[in-house]
Amino acid sequence: MRAEHGILAELRDRQEITVLVYEYCRALDAMDLDALVALFTPDCVVDYGPQIRSEGATALHRDLARMWRWARTSHHSGAVQIKFDDVDSAVVCSSVLAWHESPDGSTATMMGQYHDRVRRTTDGWRIATRRQVLTGNDAGFTVAINPFERRPDPRLT
Amino acid sequence: MRAEHGILAELRDRQEITVLVYEYCRALDAMDLDALVALFTPDCVVDYGPQIRSEGATALHRDLARMWRWARTSHHSGAVQIKFDDVDSAVVCSSVLAWHESPDGSTATMMGQYHDRVRRTTDGWRIATRRQVLTGNDAGFTVAINPFERRPDPRLT
Amino acid sequence: MRAEHGILAELRDRQEITVLVYEYCRALDAMDLDALVALFTPDCVVDYGPQIRSEGATALHRDLARMWRWARTSHHSGAVQIKFDDVDSAVVCSSVLAWHESPDGSTATMMGQYHDRVRRTTDGWRIATRRQVLTGNDAGFTVAINPFERRPDPRLT
Repeated sequence: MRAEHGILAELRDRQEITVLVYEYCRALDAMDLDALVALFTPDCVVDYGPQIRSEGATALHRDLARMWRWARTSHHSGAVQIKFDDVDSAVVCSSVLAWHESPDGSTATMMGQYHDRVRRTTDGWRIATRRQVLTGNDAGFTVAINPFERRPDPRLT
Repeated sequence: MRAEHGILAELRDRQEITVLVYEYCRALDAMDLDALVALFTPDCVVDYGPQIRSEGATALHRDLARMWRWARTSHHSGAVQIKFDDVDSAVVCSSVLAWHESPDGSTATMMGQYHDRVRRTTDGWRIATRRQVLTGNDAGFTVAINPFERRPDPRLT
Repeated sequence: MRAEHGILAELRDRQEITVLVYEYCRALDAMDLDALVALFTPDCVVDYGPQIRSEGATALHRDLARMWRWARTSHHSGAVQIKFDDVDSAVVCSSVLAWHESPDGSTATMMGQYHDRVRRTTDGWRIATRRQVLTGNDAGFTVAINPFERRPDPRLT
């Protein structure tokens, strides 16, 4: 792939995709849903869990208004890993730690991963599909995020 | 901007600025205040909150000695986003999760963002101004950090 | 060093080393120990603490099976700082926040740093030595990780 992509162009693409992932968390904490939705393709599919799925950027904007039920949130994004399919498409895995506080002061914390497919568009890189999985949570967090599957324990097989 | 900056030089600058942000947290946990203050310009302004503001690197060094009241701290820096004003100046937004433990074993955790202006100097990139805002905290954390403002809820306007 | 390394080659090396550090945490949460051990040199030395040390990739694979005692883990890797010794070797400091949940639902959280030496091999960058130090932990986390040393408090000397 590097022969066609070019190392310099690839490094710049990695930087832009990494910021795309970071910016989602920043915009979500700010509840700047216009900025957030602009990170996705119009035909995006965003899958947080069996009952929490948005198809299309317009639906995503509408659906994420559910986050107003929290008084504060703090999403910590990191560990962005990018694998290019070709120069215009990549799969991305990143980690997130998300803290949420209700108006009554109770809190809920979850940890997980985002598994994205990103596409180059004329306006830059955009998230085409996003799937969140849950690697950990405290008792306060009760949303049914997609489960994370570990390898099976070889000692039990 | 890229025409004057050059993509390769810009990517190197992004790498150096990103490490500048990371190094602040590493040096603070180590209470290596000499190394920490060397990340700032001599005329820096660092604003943690209405009553917690340091003007100049000498004042910052003196003021951060307040962190000795903690027995241990662990600052987790990430999501560094950089926007260049020109080739020698940029604004930077990053996230932090900071855990603090008192000598009595009680703990305090805060989450927030750093909003920096960084400048290229003859010794490399340095932080000229830093403003911290608070996106979340537990009950143990009672320091008055600058508040984080979300967008207003459009359902209430 | 840059004269021999080349800025572009160095930036690509930094990207590959950064992903190496991230991938350890991803593979550990997945308990994909084959993938995890492939990040290390065959002669690696991995030192988590006075009684937790693995010499060689085969021993590391065997020893990390201890992590099966947790029902879930979530490791959050970040703040990767890289200093090259030469074009084929570097020292790396990164931060980690690791949450662990037992089958009984009790949890243990630790925060720390990894101090690595990485080497370029014919298969890419690999971790040759890793030493973990503990910057913070909750009461549930009782594993004896190497202590983190802050600078001495100058007010006490």
